[in-house]
This record gives sequence, C-alpha cells and structure tokens, in this order.
Amino acid sequence: MSSSRPLRLALFGSGRIGQVHARNLAADPDIELVLIADPFIDAARALASQTGARAVQDPEEVFAAQDLDGVIIGSPTNTHVDLMTRAAERGLAVLCEKPIDLDLDTVLACRDRVKNATAPIMLGFNRRFDPGFAAVNARVEAGEIGPLEQLTIISRDPAPAPRGYLETSGGIFRDMTIHDLDMARFFVPDIVEVTAVGANQFSDDIRELGDYDSVVVTLRGRGGELISITNSRHCSYGYDQRLEAFGPEGMLEARNLTPTAVRKHDASGTELQDPIMNFFLERYAEAYRLELQAFAQAIRSGTTPSPGFADGLAALVLADAAVESAQNGKTVTVEQIW
Amino acid sequence: MSSSRPLRLALFGSGRIGQVHARNLAADPDIELVLIADPFIDAARALASQTGARAVQDPEEVFAAQDLDGVIIGSPTNTHVDLMTRAAERGLAVLCEKPIDLDLDTVLACRDRVKNATAPIMLGFNRRFDPGFAAVNARVEAGEIGPLEQLTIISRDPAPAPRGYLETSGGIFRDMTIHDLDMARFFVPDIVEVTAVGANQFSDDIRELGDYDSVVVTLRGRGGELISITNSRHCSYGYDQRLEAFGPEGMLEARNLTPTAVRKHDASGTELQDPIMNFFLERYAEAYRLELQAFAQAIRSGTTPSPGFADGLAALVLADAAVESAQNGKTVTVEQIW
Amino acid sequence: MSSSRPLRLALFGSGRIGQVHARNLAADPDIELVLIADPFIDAARALASQTGARAVQDPEEVFAAQDLDGVIIGSPTNTHVDLMTRAAERGLAVLCEKPIDLDLDTVLACRDRVKNATAPIMLGFNRRFDPGFAAVNARVEAGEIGPLEQLTIISRDPAPAPRGYLETSGGIFRDMTIHDLDMARFFVPDIVEVTAVGANQFSDDIRELGDYDSVVVTLRGRGGELISITNSRHCSYGYDQRLEAFGPEGMLEARNLTPTAVRKHDASGTELQDPIMNFFLERYAEAYRLELQAFAQAIRSGTTPSPGFADGLAALVLADAAVESAQNGKTVTVEQIW
Amino acid sequence: MSSSRPLRLALFGSGRIGQVHARNLAADPDIELVLIADPFIDAARALASQTGARAVQDPEEVFAAQDLDGVIIGSPTNTHVDLMTRAAERGLAVLCEKPIDLDLDTVLACRDRVKNATAPIMLGFNRRFDPGFAAVNARVEAGEIGPLEQLTIISRDPAPAPRGYLETSGGIFRDMTIHDLDMARFFVPDIVEVTAVGANQFSDDIRELGDYDSVVVTLRGRGGELISITNSRHCSYGYDQRLEAFGPEGMLEARNLTPTAVRKHDASGTELQDPIMNFFLERYAEAYRLELQAFAQAIRSGTTPSPGFADGLAALVLADAAVESAQNGKTVTVEQIW
Repeated sequence: MSSSRPLRLALFGSGRIGQVHARNLAADPDIELVLIADPFIDAARALASQTGARAVQDPEEVFAAQDLDGVIIGSPTNTHVDLMTRAAERGLAVLCEKPIDLDLDTVLACRDRVKNATAPIMLGFNRRFDPGFAAVNARVEAGEIGPLEQLTIISRDPAPAPRGYLETSGGIFRDMTIHDLDMARFFVPDIVEVTAVGANQFSDDIRELGDYDSVVVTLRGRGGELISITNSRHCSYGYDQRLEAFGPEGMLEARNLTPTAVRKHDASGTELQDPIMNFFLERYAEAYRLELQAFAQAIRSGTTPSPGFADGLAALVLADAAVESAQNGKTVTVEQIW
Repeated sequence: MSSSRPLRLALFGSGRIGQVHARNLAADPDIELVLIADPFIDAARALASQTGARAVQDPEEVFAAQDLDGVIIGSPTNTHVDLMTRAAERGLAVLCEKPIDLDLDTVLACRDRVKNATAPIMLGFNRRFDPGFAAVNARVEAGEIGPLEQLTIISRDPAPAPRGYLETSGGIFRDMTIHDLDMARFFVPDIVEVTAVGANQFSDDIRELGDYDSVVVTLRGRGGELISITNSRHCSYGYDQRLEAFGPEGMLEARNLTPTAVRKHDASGTELQDPIMNFFLERYAEAYRLELQAFAQAIRSGTTPSPGFADGLAALVLADAAVESAQNGKTVTVEQIW
Repeated sequence: MSSSRPLRLALFGSGRIGQVHARNLAADPDIELVLIADPFIDAARALASQTGARAVQDPEEVFAAQDLDGVIIGSPTNTHVDLMTRAAERGLAVLCEKPIDLDLDTVLACRDRVKNATAPIMLGFNRRFDPGFAAVNARVEAGEIGPLEQLTIISRDPAPAPRGYLETSGGIFRDMTIHDLDMARFFVPDIVEVTAVGANQFSDDIRELGDYDSVVVTLRGRGGELISITNSRHCSYGYDQRLEAFGPEGMLEARNLTPTAVRKHDASGTELQDPIMNFFLERYAEAYRLELQAFAQAIRSGTTPSPGFADGLAALVLADAAVESAQNGKTVTVEQIW
Repeated sequence: MSSSRPLRLALFGSGRIGQVHARNLAADPDIELVLIADPFIDAARALASQTGARAVQDPEEVFAAQDLDGVIIGSPTNTHVDLMTRAAERGLAVLCEKPIDLDLDTVLACRDRVKNATAPIMLGFNRRFDPGFAAVNARVEAGEIGPLEQLTIISRDPAPAPRGYLETSGGIFRDMTIHDLDMARFFVPDIVEVTAVGANQFSDDIRELGDYDSVVVTLRGRGGELISITNSRHCSYGYDQRLEAFGPEGMLEARNLTPTAVRKHDASGTELQDPIMNFFLERYAEAYRLELQAFAQAIRSGTTPSPGFADGLAALVLADAAVESAQNGKTVTVEQIW
C-alpha cells in the first residue's frame, strides 16, 4: 500500500476507549478517521464533530463504506467477535480491544472464521507499547540481563469498577489479570503452568459476585522462567503499574510514572514525589498513541501485527486456567492451543 | 476574539526553533499556521509542505497578509527588534524568541516603539512553561514552603555551540545564563544585586573569544532572597536542568527528566536510570507546546502574556550586570529599568 | 535480675556466625562473653583471644560454668536441639540460630523438653531486627496503611552456597525461604495456606540434589492476607532483600541498602548508586547487633523473647508445606501446631 | 610505636562533642581513654564513669600524666590554642576540634610555637571522614569524572544555635561556613579567590548581632575550579548536607542520609523517605568514629595527619576573606599563607 494518501479508518464505539482512539487518530496527519459507529448516535456525533469524522448508527454503514483500510473495535466486549469477523471477511484490518470474548469456545470459533483474513488483526493489549515496559522488554531481548529467570509484575487498579461493570466483566482474572498475563507472554510467550490464589479483602460487591478483589498468580514458562503477578482492585496511591525482570546478569525494573520530576522535602520526610498517575487513560496515554502507530504500520507494510489474534486467545486461556487453579487449589497445566 | 475560528499565525524562521513551533502549531486544531517566512526559501518550503502553511521569502508578505492574528519570531536575533516592531505596529500579537536583542540601548529604543502596542507581546522564555519548574513555582506561590529564601539553579548545556555561533552569541551570560536569570525572576521578579564569577575550564575557542565556559552567579532579591546559578557549557550526562527552591517550611526540587522510569541494577551498581534528555528541544518539548498555548490564550483573551517584553528587558539588564561583575570582581547593583 | 553487673554469656560455635556474635558481644559493655566452645579448639582460641573470652572444646565446660546467664548457639544445625535442650534444662537463656532442626519430629520432641524452661528461648531470625523491615512492620502495626492486604517479599542470595553445604541444608525452602517465611509471619503470624512453585534455572549442582534454585511461594493469612515470596539462589547485583507492605491506605517498602548515598551521573545514565551490600553479615550487621540487645533485654526483664521457639517451629512447618506444595502442584493447608 | 598496647589518650572537655569522642574511644579496644579534664568536674566525672576514664579538673594533671600518647581537645574554642601548644610542646599528639581560634594572628602565633612539634597535630574537620563525602573525594581523585570543574556544596543547619552561642561564634562564616570551606579545600586545596554574599532572612537575633543567617559563597581554585557554597542557619527538613562534584566525564553527588531505606506511597505522593538526620552528631556519627581511627593511625605510624594544622589555618583565612567580601561587595584575592 502506498503511503501517498492517509489511511482511512473507522471506529466502533464512542465510549471512553473510543474517545482515546478518536483523538489520537485526529492528531495523526497520516490517518483519516472517516466514520464513528455507535448505536448511541448522540455520543458518536459529539465525538465525530471533534475529530472531523462522520457519525453512523448502524455498523452496516461502516462495512458498506468505500476505500476503508481498517476498523478499530472499541465497542462492548459482546460485539467484538461479530464485528471482527465481518471486518476480516471484508478484507479490513482490525484493531480490537481486549478481550476477543470472555468465552473460549466463541473465541475458537471466531479463530476459524478469521484464519484466512488477508488484512492484519491486532489485539489492543496497549501495555506492550508503554515506553517503560517496552524498553525493559527490548533490553531483555537484547541480552542485557542474560536469559530471563524471574518476572515480577505488580498491577493494582485505583478502585474497583462499578458493580454493573463487574457483573459482566468475566471476573478479575479475565478482566484485569488478563493484561498482566499478556505482559507475562510479552516476555515469555510460552507459558506451561498457572497457579493462582485469590482473596476477598475489601469489597463486599466483589465477594457477593463470587469473584476475588485481590489475587496472586504464578506462571511457569517452558524455559523454567517463574513469573509472579500481584493484583488488587484498589490502590490508594494511584494506578500501580510496575514490573521487574531478573536474570543472571542484572535486573531491570519499570517504575510508576509521575507527572513531573518534582520532589518535596519537609519535616515529614524527603524525596516525596507527586502522586502517580491515577487513571489508565492518562497512565497509558503514550502507549495508546504508539499502539495506533503500530497498527497503521502493520496495515501499510502488510506485516503481521503484534500482539495479534493468537495473543488474545492465549491470554484468555491463561485467565481460564487461573480461574480453575484458584478454585481448586491446584497448579493447572496449560495446553498450548494458540 | 471569538474562538469560533482557529487563530491565524505566521512564523518567521524555519530553522531549528522554527521547526519546533511549526510542528506544534500544525498539531493544534485551534491554530492555523498560514505563512512561514524565511530568506532561505527552500527551508521555508520544506517546512511549509509538512505543516500545510505557505512559504514566503519576504517578510513584507507576512505583514501584507489578511486576517492574521499574530506572528512567532524564530529568526536570527538581529532581526527580532525589526520584526517585533513592525508586527506590533500592525496590531499583530508577537511571540518572540529570546533575546529581544543583545544590545540594551536597542532594546530600550524598541520598547519605546512597541509601548502602545494593542496586541500581546510575549517573550519565548520557554522554561517557565516546563511542567516541573512551573509546578515548583506554583507551589512556592501557594505558600507550600513559606516565603522563598534560597533558589539554587543548575543549568548545563550538553556541549558548546559551534564557534561561529559563539562569536555572535553575546557571551555566556547573555546567551545561556539569560535563561536562568529569567528563571530566577520567575520566582523573584525584583532582583537588586548581581555577583558573577567566570572561568575557563575546557574550551580554547571560548577562551580565545574572551568569554567564559563556566560561571557561577549569585543574585539578591529585594526581599533578601539569595539565588545561586551554576552554568557550564558542557555536560557529559546530558542537558542538566535542575532547580531547588528553599523556604522556612521545606524545599521543592525539580530534577532532570529521563525518557522512561526504567532502572537498572547490576554488579556495577543499582538504580541506574536512563541518560537524561540531551537536547533542549527534546527536554523542553512540553514547555514549547504549553508556551504556544499560553500565547494563543493571551491573544484570545486579550490579556497581557507572561513572560512579556519587560521580562526580556530585565533578563538582559541582569546579564549585562553579570558581565560587569565578572570582569570587575564587584557586586553590581541593578537599576530597575523594566 | 539486676543490671548492676554485665550479663555473662557463652557462645557455641566460632564459625562465621559465631564470629559476628562474639564481636558484637565484645563491643557491648553490659555483656561479658565468658566462654567460646567449639570442637575446633584452634578456631575457638583465635576468636577468644580477640574478644577476651576463654576457649573450651567440650560443651560440658559451658554447662558446668558458674554464674552463666545464657548461651548463644551458633554451632552446626545438627547440634542445636541437644545444646538448646541442655541449656534450657539448666535454666540458661538461649539464643539459637535458625533452624531449630531440619526435621519436624525432632523439633516437636525438643519442644516437649523445653516447654517448662524458666529462662527465655529466642530464635535467631535476625531479619526481624533489620531497622528497615522493623520500621515497616511497626508502621503497619501502627495502622499507617490500614489492615495489611498484600506483602511482597523479594529475597535473593548473591550466590549459591558450596555443594557441601547445600547437601545438608535441607533444601531451599528449609534453608533460605525459611527466613522469608518468618518475615511473612512477622507481619501475619497466622498463615493458613502455602502454595509453592520451584524451578531449576542455572545451577546443575542444585538440580542434581533434587532441589530448586529459584522459587515463588504464595501464603494466605487467616485474615485473607496474600503474601508473595520470590527467591533466587543467585543475584549479580548483591544481596537483594526487599519487601513491600500494601494496605487500603498506602504502601510501605523497604529498599536495598548501599554503603553510601553517593550517586553517579555520566553518559551511560544517571542516579547510579553504589552496589548494594553483597554479604549477609554486612547487610544485616545492624540487625545482629539489635537482636543481641533484644536477647539481653529479655534475660534482664524475664520477658518472653520474640521470635521465640514457636516461631522457629512455625517457619519449619511452613517450609515443609512449601516442599509438599511444590512437589505436588497443590495448595497445602497448614495445621497450626505452634 | 608498637601496636602491642592500646594508645593512651586524654580528653579535654566533657560537653557534647567530648561525649561523642569519649564514647567512641571507649568502644575502641585499641585505645584507652585515661583522663577526662573539665573545669566542670561533675560533667567530667559522669562521663568518666561511663567510659572507664578518670576525671580531673585541672589540665595540668593531663600534662603531668605518664605514658600518655595524645590528647583530644573538645573544650571551648578560647582554650584550643593554649592546650594545643602545651600538648605539642610535651610531645603529645593532638586532635583539636575546629576552629584553632577565631583570630588569625593568634593562630599564626600558635603556628610558630607548634611548628617543631614531633607528634601529629590533627584538626577536627570531621566531614572529611563522612563515608559519602570521602567516597566522592576518592572517586574524583581517581579520575572518575576527569579534572574537577565545579563543586556545589549545600549545607544547612536544622536551627540557629542559642543567642549566647552565636555571640561568641565569630559569625556564620567562621562558625558554620568554615566546615564547607574546608570541604572545598578537601577537593581543591589551593583556593585563590573568595566572593561572598550574605542575607538576613529570618532571625532577628542574628540580624541584631550584625551577622547573616543565610550566605552564598563562591570560591575559585588555582586551576580555575568554581566552588559554590550555600548555607542557611535553619532547615525544616533536617540537617541538609550535600555536595556535587562535576567534571568533564560526569558528576558525583552525595545525598542526605536517612535512618532507613523505607519509602512510603499514599494518596499524597510516592517515594516519601524518612526525614533526614537532624542532628550533627547523628548525621556524622560514622565520620567521628573514622576521624578517631585516622588520628590513632597517625600516632601509630608517625605520619602527618590530614586535615592538619595548616588546614585549620587555611579555613580561617578563607572565612575571614568571606567576611570581607560580603561586607564590601568585592571578590577577595586570598594570600596563600598556609
């Protein structure tokens, strides 16, 4: 594909994540956001007016549009498989927010239908594009610490989502830990065992839903790598997002981000930094921008994007294994179906 | 002025700093970069083609343009006074890179000609817009450390400019320290004394030009505040840009910036951060963006921008005092002519 | 007991740990180190000559000594139970290095014999006395972060012990993790579940011994607290000893220690600290001193020391559970026998 | 001198600094503190009873004692010259607290009388023995950053001394800055110019005494090195003691010390460290211990100690120059009389 004209993209969904993508698309001179589709047409129109796109209510209008290069799926989870399948069948590139679906069989069925897709399918595991995590990953790949032996991921949300969201979220492993499972696979693609422990520490809502508000997951990679994930659904000091990669020659850690490098010193203590970023869209603002660039690059070059469909499938397999392990108190061996 | 249409701006200069402004203007949906003027018309054209502007060779074409709201002066220093004066006389808002001029009498004469300007005149002391320095300033203003007593500014360039640039730079105090003198005035506008010491530590070029490559300047504010500025024309670890504000109730410091929050630990030591940003356009990228927003805001609201002409004048007065102090080994009392 | 005369203590063992205790005892004006017993009498004599003690070969000479207040057992593990039992039966206070024994039944039998001891029995889990860990523990106890929800312990040795030591060490869980299990119990005394995963990442020696060189252990406290322990038998950047305590109102972390607060900045990066301390005796030097003071204080005041016999037993029970969990891939429920 | 017997030392002064030395001497098995002399005999007795020394009221008893190797002078400043002179004339080694005297002529006269002393004379500039400052100094000497170009010293006391002390202190330059002047000379022994600026920012007492509570001093070394010293007589966050050494190949900084490496993270911010040490005896506890070792080593080896008499003289010359510079608003050229 020539780079002589901007890419023409459509967006499904004008909610929180759709707005992030729409604004990033609008600021990129090499991409034209043509259509925004949302059953809530008012929301689509509001976003369209800010970004020079046209709002449509019916997804069919997207699939009928001429000269479209690809779609970004930021609509609710239960629409992902249908929209992805139809887009792929029309030869459109797809960037789909995670998860593909909460049900493994549905994802497997979807896989069969998109396996002959000619255009790239990319999964929205945005954290792979975070400059800090990406830098650690690249430096590990470059051999800076020798072969990876241990990976410690700490990931805490500022506060639980509303109960309505939690009820359809698929549970902490499929909704929240899934990002960390993908981060684990960013470093160690080949995971063979999952051991998970869950607890109810503070949220009655979550307890009533039969879910955990706090979990620790241990993964084993095929090469014997040990990965530890610690999650909590709340965190008073912001959106705690850190990791440490350990190998025989050293350790690389990605720390939390603060808005400035200002430090305060007073009678109560020294080196106090600003609070860390509290909101995922702010914390991962740069990651969302870079993710979009990677998607555009995959379309233009015709290469397979990363993370792709198989990564979305793999993360769900690991999340399901974590559910099983936590419930049964057993380590679960993972069958590598991706 | 209504915000119903984008601001229409022209840019003088398509060199390094002009390119920064042009790209920031192009990315702002509320601003239209109409014209780029440069005697080197090829450079102007190249930049114009990337930013949707029209390139012109003759400044007159800018002043003849219809519906222009303001100009950004990023051309060589010796053109600043002429372009600023003519723009102001035509009722155009002006954002002028520092310094106004290297000669105090020229600046004073310019002041007389622009004193009745109806549109805002803003000086490009971009560091006031750096999020870290601005946060410290705002927190000091808010009383977080009590009345400011001491301000320590450390500012080192990665490497000396080429000899050709140095020859016309006006010397370290007027070219480099001037930024720190303005930063001092950002915290303590009313400076009454300047004491400067200079040295030749590493650059034969600079020595031959009769200039210093390394200086320490002490300022006294009217309220007894003591400000210490340390400069070097080289710095192996990047663009060292830090400050500390000290008061009876605490100290606030703005540290250097690194591209990520990654830390390395190995046998040679721990907590190694990435190198700090090495280039002023990268280090102050956000400051340049915010400066432009402040300029646009001043035009739209018709308010006096900060820093303004008087700040450009004041910084030059302090730089001249530093030259005199360093040469004579005496503290110089500053006459407040701004 | 009056504090009018120094405590009179004897030391079993003049090896590495014995030397630490002997020097700390010699530097404490309120304690008199009377005897050092070691079958390797030359070693005992060398140490005795530096510390003003008398060297003896036969433990009987210790038990026959007059006016002794207590003993410190720093001899090999397989002598602990016998020496502790005999000392307790003679009314001597005991500070015994961990572990009490590697065999649970032996420890339980020992418990029966010392349960009526009149003098204090203290276990040498020195890390509880580390000023950093102790400060975090005290601040958690004081409610600074609310009820503890998650505890993350990272503990890595600089290098594996020699094969000869490893062969009799009882394996990584009973030899190395046991310190972290006790640290977990320092924060959450009542552990109800152990889940452990082990790997062989770098040491052929350890693999051949049927042991792991790298483990991750998850504990659950009775209150639902989740504790994660990450261990490695090697660490290129020193003796990695950190923990993080997380609660609803904040997080407290204890970082590694470096000999000075010097930082290096150069072209390769910034904020490089000195290497962290590499050797457990250096890293925990202050902890060993404070442990000894706590022991002396327990003797003088007649109070029960902490950690005590039950803590030594509990750590072994947890280590045994970790062995079982890692071998069987199952979470092990812990019977609270301590 | 043989190391076969402990050094026998006497101490003048049982005040705050005398107590530090006495306790360090008592804990060193290779030194015997024989006598403590103080006109306040009760204080001397109290300290003597804790350290195994004998208390005397009259200094003559010290000079009459047999087998003494040296004295430590921790009595008031106005006794230093007399005690030092008499000790030197009797062949005793001397460790004298700073300053030798507040009057330059008195110091010069003293120099004439001790110039033929056979035993070492050492000055108590304890900060040279601080592990952090000493490490930076050693690494600069080893060439780690290339030739030193700039040294930035920030030194702030927690709070002003009582008015009674201030009245006889000799003023901020001779009482407080003198430590930093010596620190400057630790890095750049050959200082050729002093430029000082003083201010009255908060203390009416200090203003009434005609002294400054806040100063900035710039020194120039013979090699063109620039040294900046910032002092304040108060500091809300503790005893602020830092320095940065800058050269063409990098920068080394010594940061403040905190009692532990614990960090707090909560809604108000992250990475909050404990307050820095607030009291000079606590902050420089290790420095005092190492200073004493260096003194003992100089006695045993018969080598010239560092810092020595000339360093005490030089610091006073620089302090006098700072007084003159601050009063006259001129850079003062220093005559190298040491």
